[in-house]
Amino acid sequence: MATATEDAGGPRRSAKAWSGRLAADTNPTLERYTSSLEWDRQLAAQDIQGSLAHSVALHRSGLIDAATKESILSGLTQVAVELRDDSFEFLPSDEDIHMAVERRLTELAGEPGARLHTGRSRNDQVAVDLRLWARSECLRLAGAAIDLQEVLLRRAREERRTLLPGYTHMQRAQPVTLGHHLLAYVEMLNRDVDRIKDCHRRADSSPLGAGALAGTTLPIDRRATAAALGFSAVTSNSLDAVSDRDFVAELTFCCALLAVHLSRLAEDLIIWNTREFSFVTLPDSWATGSSLMPQKKNPDVLELVRGRSSVPLASLVGLLAMLKGLPLSYNRDLQEDKRHLFAATEVTETSLSALSGLLNEIRFARRRMASAAADPELLATDLAEQLVAAGMPFRTAHERVGAAVRSAGELNLRLDRLVAQRWREIGLPADPGQCGLFDPRRSLARREQPGAPGPRAVAAAIRRAATLIRRSRGWIAAESQRQPPPPASSGSA
Amino acid sequence: MATATEDAGGPRRSAKAWSGRLAADTNPTLERYTSSLEWDRQLAAQDIQGSLAHSVALHRSGLIDAATKESILSGLTQVAVELRDDSFEFLPSDEDIHMAVERRLTELAGEPGARLHTGRSRNDQVAVDLRLWARSECLRLAGAAIDLQEVLLRRAREERRTLLPGYTHMQRAQPVTLGHHLLAYVEMLNRDVDRIKDCHRRADSSPLGAGALAGTTLPIDRRATAAALGFSAVTSNSLDAVSDRDFVAELTFCCALLAVHLSRLAEDLIIWNTREFSFVTLPDSWATGSSLMPQKKNPDVLELVRGRSSVPLASLVGLLAMLKGLPLSYNRDLQEDKRHLFAATEVTETSLSALSGLLNEIRFARRRMASAAADPELLATDLAEQLVAAGMPFRTAHERVGAAVRSAGELNLRLDRLVAQRWREIGLPADPGQCGLFDPRRSLARREQPGAPGPRAVAAAIRRAATLIRRSRGWIAAESQRQPPPPASSGSA
Amino acid sequence: MATATEDAGGPRRSAKAWSGRLAADTNPTLERYTSSLEWDRQLAAQDIQGSLAHSVALHRSGLIDAATKESILSGLTQVAVELRDDSFEFLPSDEDIHMAVERRLTELAGEPGARLHTGRSRNDQVAVDLRLWARSECLRLAGAAIDLQEVLLRRAREERRTLLPGYTHMQRAQPVTLGHHLLAYVEMLNRDVDRIKDCHRRADSSPLGAGALAGTTLPIDRRATAAALGFSAVTSNSLDAVSDRDFVAELTFCCALLAVHLSRLAEDLIIWNTREFSFVTLPDSWATGSSLMPQKKNPDVLELVRGRSSVPLASLVGLLAMLKGLPLSYNRDLQEDKRHLFAATEVTETSLSALSGLLNEIRFARRRMASAAADPELLATDLAEQLVAAGMPFRTAHERVGAAVRSAGELNLRLDRLVAQRWREIGLPADPGQCGLFDPRRSLARREQPGAPGPRAVAAAIRRAATLIRRSRGWIAAESQRQPPPPASSGSA
Amino acid sequence: MATATEDAGGPRRSAKAWSGRLAADTNPTLERYTSSLEWDRQLAAQDIQGSLAHSVALHRSGLIDAATKESILSGLTQVAVELRDDSFEFLPSDEDIHMAVERRLTELAGEPGARLHTGRSRNDQVAVDLRLWARSECLRLAGAAIDLQEVLLRRAREERRTLLPGYTHMQRAQPVTLGHHLLAYVEMLNRDVDRIKDCHRRADSSPLGAGALAGTTLPIDRRATAAALGFSAVTSNSLDAVSDRDFVAELTFCCALLAVHLSRLAEDLIIWNTREFSFVTLPDSWATGSSLMPQKKNPDVLELVRGRSSVPLASLVGLLAMLKGLPLSYNRDLQEDKRHLFAATEVTETSLSALSGLLNEIRFARRRMASAAADPELLATDLAEQLVAAGMPFRTAHERVGAAVRSAGELNLRLDRLVAQRWREIGLPADPGQCGLFDPRRSLARREQPGAPGPRAVAAAIRRAATLIRRSRGWIAAESQRQPPPPASSGSA
Repeated sequence: MATATEDAGGPRRSAKAWSGRLAADTNPTLERYTSSLEWDRQLAAQDIQGSLAHSVALHRSGLIDAATKESILSGLTQVAVELRDDSFEFLPSDEDIHMAVERRLTELAGEPGARLHTGRSRNDQVAVDLRLWARSECLRLAGAAIDLQEVLLRRAREERRTLLPGYTHMQRAQPVTLGHHLLAYVEMLNRDVDRIKDCHRRADSSPLGAGALAGTTLPIDRRATAAALGFSAVTSNSLDAVSDRDFVAELTFCCALLAVHLSRLAEDLIIWNTREFSFVTLPDSWATGSSLMPQKKNPDVLELVRGRSSVPLASLVGLLAMLKGLPLSYNRDLQEDKRHLFAATEVTETSLSALSGLLNEIRFARRRMASAAADPELLATDLAEQLVAAGMPFRTAHERVGAAVRSAGELNLRLDRLVAQRWREIGLPADPGQCGLFDPRRSLARREQPGAPGPRAVAAAIRRAATLIRRSRGWIAAESQRQPPPPASSGSA
Repeated sequence: MATATEDAGGPRRSAKAWSGRLAADTNPTLERYTSSLEWDRQLAAQDIQGSLAHSVALHRSGLIDAATKESILSGLTQVAVELRDDSFEFLPSDEDIHMAVERRLTELAGEPGARLHTGRSRNDQVAVDLRLWARSECLRLAGAAIDLQEVLLRRAREERRTLLPGYTHMQRAQPVTLGHHLLAYVEMLNRDVDRIKDCHRRADSSPLGAGALAGTTLPIDRRATAAALGFSAVTSNSLDAVSDRDFVAELTFCCALLAVHLSRLAEDLIIWNTREFSFVTLPDSWATGSSLMPQKKNPDVLELVRGRSSVPLASLVGLLAMLKGLPLSYNRDLQEDKRHLFAATEVTETSLSALSGLLNEIRFARRRMASAAADPELLATDLAEQLVAAGMPFRTAHERVGAAVRSAGELNLRLDRLVAQRWREIGLPADPGQCGLFDPRRSLARREQPGAPGPRAVAAAIRRAATLIRRSRGWIAAESQRQPPPPASSGSA
Repeated sequence: MATATEDAGGPRRSAKAWSGRLAADTNPTLERYTSSLEWDRQLAAQDIQGSLAHSVALHRSGLIDAATKESILSGLTQVAVELRDDSFEFLPSDEDIHMAVERRLTELAGEPGARLHTGRSRNDQVAVDLRLWARSECLRLAGAAIDLQEVLLRRAREERRTLLPGYTHMQRAQPVTLGHHLLAYVEMLNRDVDRIKDCHRRADSSPLGAGALAGTTLPIDRRATAAALGFSAVTSNSLDAVSDRDFVAELTFCCALLAVHLSRLAEDLIIWNTREFSFVTLPDSWATGSSLMPQKKNPDVLELVRGRSSVPLASLVGLLAMLKGLPLSYNRDLQEDKRHLFAATEVTETSLSALSGLLNEIRFARRRMASAAADPELLATDLAEQLVAAGMPFRTAHERVGAAVRSAGELNLRLDRLVAQRWREIGLPADPGQCGLFDPRRSLARREQPGAPGPRAVAAAIRRAATLIRRSRGWIAAESQRQPPPPASSGSA
Repeated sequence: MATATEDAGGPRRSAKAWSGRLAADTNPTLERYTSSLEWDRQLAAQDIQGSLAHSVALHRSGLIDAATKESILSGLTQVAVELRDDSFEFLPSDEDIHMAVERRLTELAGEPGARLHTGRSRNDQVAVDLRLWARSECLRLAGAAIDLQEVLLRRAREERRTLLPGYTHMQRAQPVTLGHHLLAYVEMLNRDVDRIKDCHRRADSSPLGAGALAGTTLPIDRRATAAALGFSAVTSNSLDAVSDRDFVAELTFCCALLAVHLSRLAEDLIIWNTREFSFVTLPDSWATGSSLMPQKKNPDVLELVRGRSSVPLASLVGLLAMLKGLPLSYNRDLQEDKRHLFAATEVTETSLSALSGLLNEIRFARRRMASAAADPELLATDLAEQLVAAGMPFRTAHERVGAAVRSAGELNLRLDRLVAQRWREIGLPADPGQCGLFDPRRSLARREQPGAPGPRAVAAAIRRAATLIRRSRGWIAAESQRQPPPPASSGSA
């Protein structure tokens, strides 16, 4: 979109909504400093949707006649077309997207344009725009999260038998499968989608009609406008309606926590992609090189997912610090909500897509993983638990097995190579490895409780994940129906 | 609680759970630096609840016999009593509350104590403790929020007819009532309670049985233990279960946003309490003085509510920054969750109580508020809307009324004192104030849409708030039933 | 600047620096996701300055001949011109500003362009670019802070005798002057400028020559290049040099604290601008109106200064959370530094300018301030101190004067109207107001210690401030000399 | 320290400093909520130091006689003794450490105690206490940082010839030495110490005498008191002096960035400590085990250093969000500064000590590191640079060497095993490895520019680090001289 500077001369004063009240031209520094167009032009579609619904309501209340309504509708459709195809010209005197649209509408439609702002204020207008935007962003974000869940689920299914050492403290701990590991992220994303749904529900009330802070004396049907815009309810207090940005903070928090989940997955993969681990290989199309070192093949996408996860956190701090201590009701500080919300959602969405793309093609080094998982120390706990099953107190079993591990280390032996005599000296059975105790596949087969990495438990988890994903898709489909149509769809430009 | 230092000598090495594996004594700096007792002793009750349920499960699975179970149960009850009456002695070698309880249990019960840690790890143990704590904290926090809602609702009912200038940009905007203003905060707290409920639902799954990261090979019934602890479900992935702190971050976010709401209310009251506004008077029992200036009477409680609202925000940053980039599964970094969660919830709960107490007794200066609300400029919008109702385009009406305001200002007149000729010159009716246009009560009576400040609308809002509060109380009552009993309740110390 | 999409076809693979190593084309999602052009094109001038100095160094070391150097220099100058006049065409395959400039240089200059990247990496290149940018941003930021100091100082000089109630806890406390109040902000800005200087000093080392992480085997004179770019020193460790973003975090912190200071000044003025205080009047050119309410005149600039002060704080969190836990040396996460730094500095600079503009023209309502400062309660402390000077213990004096204030309040009298008998009953002199005790001007005259609001002390503070400002200007002038010239200044486009 | 609750009865009202002014007893909720003793009792020593200096000043000004001064001095010394040996009894009515000390002093010394608060307010009192605390904390913090530098320097000296692969993007990049790697952290800590010095300088002004906000009418010599407390200057504006917390924010920022540095070092070591890297071994005394898995040996200290690095960041956010938008001058919100400052400094100091201890004893696996560094791909850049030195444009060299790496990879060969024909086909010399090109030690020997990892450069860096450390120690020694003596040192308890 272009910002015209040359034509800014002329009768600038009349361009401002408040030119009756204030005697002097606006200072140009003020004009630049207070303009919100850099951010709120992203709300153009929602602003026009809101105005379309509002003008229908004005007509139904008898505040404008049919011809005026038609002029406004066709004018707004034209504005929407200009915005969509980037032919809309912003003027320096356009303080924000709301005034820009109204100004252009009035140029196109004449006097009817001057009737549009009846019974509303920019305070409830921007609130409704932002709630429309947040509602549809919830759907986009959840959709991108589900896309990633599907990739994870597909890879988990393929790798449900791939042995992998599970780590705690970044130390090898017990054997799991790669499928089980990937499903942990499906779980995290389930919670993310759940939180987004809750946020959507709380954003789903129309503030239109709250006016500047105290409603309006004109007979406008708030519920009808809300329904036309697909809202489930109207807000319950006009002072709160214009100053509430909870849904912005909550959506940004959803992004921040989701992004933290992505950063953890990225970290796993970055570590697995080191030469030392070599658990994964990036396809060349998902790697980057170095400008200096000819041999390099770097996981930049993963590093950026990790690095950018701090963006929604930063946005959340910006929002909450901005809101803190604001008296009621609307204060201009609230304008700063968009900068933070848009950054948080944009980063989270693109990181989700990038990770989905990369995970779709990453290659898992099954042999390296299996070899690492074959370390018999990973089964020290199984040994202790076998002793417990035979009656030994756990703390005794733990101590003796620990001593065996230490002893093997001092002798520079693998645990399963310790001789019978040494086992006996420690107070343990002479050949604990019989019956396949040190076989990681058998260990997994012993772990079949809900949520455990055993093959049947993982198969059940895969089925459960598929069901949850299907339900989430269903929710998106149902909510999408309630979205108002894009403003220029009926346009015959 | 006392931390014994003198008796720390003796066979310290055997005190550690891992003394079999590691050959050397723990470095004392490490011991101090890694100890989490400063924070996790707050989880003592939950730790014992979890262990009680776990020992019942061990018995049911045949892993311990009845006598062992009974020894453990009565030993744990004794530990709970000691903790409750502050006679429990912590040792420097007690790394955390879990090891302290197990150590003391073993002192009291002998070998049975060494069997308690069968089939579990501190990783799932701390997760279950923290979820138990978070669940009950959700109820406490929601309870304190509802207490404040009730005070607000009572005062709103009393002040539903008290005129107050509504402000935007801290400038007088349109008349509202004090009742309407107070109800805005009831709305905010409704959302807070709603978010806490969602958080509670997501915290309400038992991780017990996830073990260190990969479940256990022993036959323990996860669902039975979960039910015994009042959980609705078991977690679905063992790797996720031990490394998930979403519920901690989410509860902290609930606190952060709630605290922001409190800070806004505090700011309103601090401003109203200035000599210049004089809209409220603090009772002497809710004010403080100055150590130097004899005349001072300060609203310290309100300032601290505002100042402390940054604590949950800080905690939230601490948590998310801690979680960012952690690889799966458990890492010791997670220990730092408690410091942040406890600070956030403690501040939010005490701020809620302090505000409830103060609001219960604060005096509203109705006459000052009414006098401020009588400013006829507050009805400039009513005038513009009256012109619109008579057919004038809103932008024209806005500009002309703005010019009238400017003109009155230049003449140093109240708007309703402008002479007929001046009104006409501007293009407006000669006596707009007739029919009570400049009477704020009449203005309110014209504002009866849902959520608006009109008397009937406010009466409806009061009824709605009462209903919502009742429902929230019902939820707390129902959930409280599911809490496990306090561990020492059956104690006969 | 335009981003060409249509011409992106052709032999795209060869456009990447690493096309030898990686066999496949880069995935387009990766290309979009990893591109840093949105942010780092702001470093174009610095990138070319760095390359100009580097090519001179390459020639001096014999790594390129004179003709190659000349080709590079004139090519780079041409690139600078294209960037300056917005005719530079970015390609989708331009990962960042560095590759965009090198790509265009090679188009213009041919093979010499392929020699420019000798002995350096993008890792040290972006570090030098960012340090050059930070150095000059320090000067711009300090300059804008000093501009505000000068406005504050001018207004303070004018208002050095204007009585104002000083406030603590937003309650009237003791009389000060408006000049003294404004000088408090001059002090804060002094510390800000001081911190910026320290930050500049730490940013003032050249990382060029650190290569990717381990320097270079080629004979390049780091100190000469550093000197050519106006750096005082070279960095001391190559691993640190490419991964150090301390100067970014520190500059962002300087912005965050500076912005907090601005937010406090904005808050003072917003409160003073309420109808209830009426201590200031905004000129119409520095106020904005309402789209709905015709009478409104709002202090939006001040609210935005306050609201935007959370942006540098958010940036700081983003930066530190990004840096936390990064292993050595360069990781791609570091790319996210620019987004945060640029947002923080841009907001801080424009807020400084906006406040300077507004403060230049704001009108102070001297009479209102003086009337508020005439409240005799503000002199209760003077009375207590007079009693102390006469030998009474302070705590006794404080208690008795407090009782007098309470008594006056109960009788609904001004403190100086309390009758002699009442004073005596409380144990105080019968007519404490004689000798002008309740005259705020005399109170000020008793407060002449360093930093106090007495007239001579304020006059001294004004002189001191003028000196500090002059010194700060001198520092900027001296440092500006060391800046490398703008890259296209010698261009003959 | 004990908090007595039982004796809190009696004439509670008289305990408050403001009991003259306010007619009612303080509400107990208010008392608990506003008490700052939990945090500010850490300022007890500073509070007494400040009061000692103040009472000397009162005497010198003639405001108290010699006997009164002596009573106060000996009373304060007694209070200091009680506080030091934990026999001081806090009462619930003690709002803060200042009132607690004054209350106890008055119990001990009688009427002289009631004269101590002459000419000062808690506003300047807490400011001076906190600045005294911050000054000495700067010295402690810098000392702990230098301790770590010394350990790093010692280990760097020992390991200056230990080959290590340098990493970028966590991919092996070029050979460095372990000594060079450790010195990178010495550099970071140098900047940290430098920042702490700057912060100390800005904290080093005495606010005493600023009173509540407007100085005092009594003749107190601010400069003498400042000198007695070891301050270099007095603050310049009384309003600023009582509301300035810049030094708190700045010290917390120093901690936050320092902690980020520590988190990076911890991350390096955690990764090196994985089985897959095995570059380090923790001594058993610096490792911990698992409660469940007998074989585990975990680097908990390192994980906590990493996890706790988010605490100072959280504190910083808490502080800046608390300060944002506060009007002048003192507001009670400022009380919340201590909670954040104390948490940040405590974590940073203990993390420094823990890392110093661990690094002192950690074992480096030189052979594993050397073997990893022997990978010939790490010398691909050397090869390209050798070609450049022979006249090939760098981009050509980079592309051809990259192709060789790719070719070797496809053939599953080490780069130095590629046959002559393949080298020639790619356009490179037939045997690039001659002259030891693929020998990492020779590569290092080619890297001797300032800051590079060559042996002579590292030796110079070691000398430089030693000098800087010596200078930092000298600064601490000099500043320590200026600290006031501990308050109870002259006590004859």
